[in-house]
Amino acid sequence: MSEPVLQTKKPQTKKPHGVSGFPEWLPEIRLMEQQWLDHIRKGFESYGYANIETPAVELLDVLLAKGETDKEIYVLKRLQEEADAEGESRFGLHYDLTVPMARYVAQHFAGLTFPFKRYQMQKVWRGERPQEGRYREFYQCDIDVIAVDNLPLAFDAEMPATLYDVINGLGLAEGICLHISNRKILDGFMQGLSIADSASCIRVIDKMDKIGAAGVAEQLRVLGLTEPAIAALTSLASIKVGGTAFASQVAALGVRHALLEEGITELAFVMENLRHLPSQAVIADLSIARGFDYYTGTVYEGKLLQYPSFGSVVAGGRYDDLAGSFINKKLPGVGVSLGFSRLFGKMVHEGVVKSERRCPTDVLVVLPSEEKRAEALKTAQQLRSRGLRVETYHAPQKLAKQLVYAEKKGIPYVWFPPFEENGVHEVKNMQSGEQKISTVADFSLVL
Amino acid sequence: MSEPVLQTKKPQTKKPHGVSGFPEWLPEIRLMEQQWLDHIRKGFESYGYANIETPAVELLDVLLAKGETDKEIYVLKRLQEEADAEGESRFGLHYDLTVPMARYVAQHFAGLTFPFKRYQMQKVWRGERPQEGRYREFYQCDIDVIAVDNLPLAFDAEMPATLYDVINGLGLAEGICLHISNRKILDGFMQGLSIADSASCIRVIDKMDKIGAAGVAEQLRVLGLTEPAIAALTSLASIKVGGTAFASQVAALGVRHALLEEGITELAFVMENLRHLPSQAVIADLSIARGFDYYTGTVYEGKLLQYPSFGSVVAGGRYDDLAGSFINKKLPGVGVSLGFSRLFGKMVHEGVVKSERRCPTDVLVVLPSEEKRAEALKTAQQLRSRGLRVETYHAPQKLAKQLVYAEKKGIPYVWFPPFEENGVHEVKNMQSGEQKISTVADFSLVL
Repeated sequence: MSEPVLQTKKPQTKKPHGVSGFPEWLPEIRLMEQQWLDHIRKGFESYGYANIETPAVELLDVLLAKGETDKEIYVLKRLQEEADAEGESRFGLHYDLTVPMARYVAQHFAGLTFPFKRYQMQKVWRGERPQEGRYREFYQCDIDVIAVDNLPLAFDAEMPATLYDVINGLGLAEGICLHISNRKILDGFMQGLSIADSASCIRVIDKMDKIGAAGVAEQLRVLGLTEPAIAALTSLASIKVGGTAFASQVAALGVRHALLEEGITELAFVMENLRHLPSQAVIADLSIARGFDYYTGTVYEGKLLQYPSFGSVVAGGRYDDLAGSFINKKLPGVGVSLGFSRLFGKMVHEGVVKSERRCPTDVLVVLPSEEKRAEALKTAQQLRSRGLRVETYHAPQKLAKQLVYAEKKGIPYVWFPPFEENGVHEVKNMQSGEQKISTVADFSLVL
Repeated sequence: MSEPVLQTKKPQTKKPHGVSGFPEWLPEIRLMEQQWLDHIRKGFESYGYANIETPAVELLDVLLAKGETDKEIYVLKRLQEEADAEGESRFGLHYDLTVPMARYVAQHFAGLTFPFKRYQMQKVWRGERPQEGRYREFYQCDIDVIAVDNLPLAFDAEMPATLYDVINGLGLAEGICLHISNRKILDGFMQGLSIADSASCIRVIDKMDKIGAAGVAEQLRVLGLTEPAIAALTSLASIKVGGTAFASQVAALGVRHALLEEGITELAFVMENLRHLPSQAVIADLSIARGFDYYTGTVYEGKLLQYPSFGSVVAGGRYDDLAGSFINKKLPGVGVSLGFSRLFGKMVHEGVVKSERRCPTDVLVVLPSEEKRAEALKTAQQLRSRGLRVETYHAPQKLAKQLVYAEKKGIPYVWFPPFEENGVHEVKNMQSGEQKISTVADFSLVL
């Protein structure tokens, strides 16, 4: 390959490239990404979620409305902006889809029907440092339900049910396990133990997966908890069990508190309504706390069964005052977010996602000669009207060359329009090599 | 409504809002937007175009690679970035999809099959001043073909044919007219007239639509052209005719030049291969120049027949050295861009786009009582497995309230699971009011 040259004032010596942390795919992988996104969308819609799409940006006031955030925000600035053109409000790229959704619900409150069930599948951006190898741009696929004043628990159960259906159809070998808890259990339990600094404890318990029960006990000791409290808390956070068996296991720890009972009742209702799912798909896991987030009840985390050390690909929960805080209303919500790019990227990396086809084309119509162009185009158009995706070869080149083009792109069928008057159409199956007489009306696509 | 409060340090007195110039829709309009985007995607794929999606950002070097741009670029900066953290490359949001595609083709050259037919449907961003009332974020839907060394003219004809098919299915009253010319005609004609400052003349001729032939003549006079040259140029730029009749009309003007002949031959080929389209859908319009762009041959503009003063919703053309310039190869291309948000926004504004449905739900399953929840959920799941989009009502509230929910959201059918053992399922058509006995297997959705 010749020496690459970039047409800029500063000459470049490298091939042009994108920005690190901003992934893009070759067409054959993108084709699969589209299929995954279509499948997820169909799954969300099968539960009646309506789509919204919010802009890439929000005002900084909105992005920072929940106070300090651990997500780094990209702020936008016009390249040719005057240095002190500060008349305009400042805005930045959204770092999740929950904050924009909350702003949207508050802003369009009068135009929405509640409970408002929405899904949103968009890219989000985080100003991660490039050396950390993380995505700075990635797709999230979210469902949330927002209600006025009171949100039935039925929706807390609908979230995992919907996600299970959606992810189950993606063809992952072992699928995903949804770990569910309820913040009130941990909060109530700690109140029952008269623990003062519950926020610090939650942050420690959140690490259960990484540092284990012994590590958690160690760090709780540093926080000054008594040995009985440490023993009770680590026992609670070690409960991982299907169905509603967690309730008796918590009771056996001997801690009593009204909030704890409320949490147990809520989680039991959710688990009860998920009995139709396979046992490995959903588990009550009382170590789940989602410490840094705004959740107040049910909390979720979803992990790939085949790659337990990969971390969560699903996260979410119930929040009481995210949307309502903007307009002084009570608008409780519950939602889950699927980290799509994280999941899809992993599956590409593991070789689970692959494609033979480099384009959507079903049929390549051969161009026998310049004189036959109109006829070839007509044949292509007739095939299209039957719902097929069709290319006409662009120039009357040698047949072998036209076939190579179809082969390279993974086009499954090649169509030969009649070479002479009153001739017949023929079609070649590129996989089997079989070629036979056909008509536009008779042809059927077998993949 | 109570006084809105934003949870920020500076208390706000306004309802939360998005950023001006960044549009968003209510769910019922978004539903239509999705249908339009799906339709366009299907249309592009029916011609075999493969999708790619590039990141929202490109390096500034790439965005500015074609030299000065009249598009204002948004540059990204991390909110918490150290003042002098200039180790990183600077990058900004893309302002179109052509420059990212050119970079993509150069970067992934070895992984692509040529001619490379790609479509791209993404948002682009332009740092317009807010007071100008323009979109700062909008969807573009682009198709382009890039070839190595030589790009057959067949693709120049395929662009308008594809766009016609795509736009024809959107249900616009009178559809769109594609105006086509070829830069070589104007360039060759001016060389034949020995006009030196052709760039300035092209910029004047580009205004034909706005200032008319007299206005163009006036401005050409200011540029110092002779009266015969002015007369010839304005006559040329006034040619607007279907089919290939433009060729004899140009010949009648008596100017001769090899480049002009080349342009005429190319445009005639394109027009000849568009004979299957209705006469109002495509026209040879020699005033089309796309002065500020990088085009070298065929050029396109598409306008709404019903709103002639609305300006172009489609633009494009053939370019010789956009992708190749990055890697010192010859990679000519041809493409068109549909200004989706501009078109869709206009149609919403004109009342052409409207929707009765505020969600995708086909059927609402009534929840008769808490005891019947499992049965209602099971019925919903059975209906889903038949491809229907189904909500189960969330709480055992009064039937009237459940029906109002369906009505408000425009859900066409309400399903009543059996209220007693061995009872029957009933389904109510919300439009006709008719209610009758049904089974999951027998039900069919009629909209």
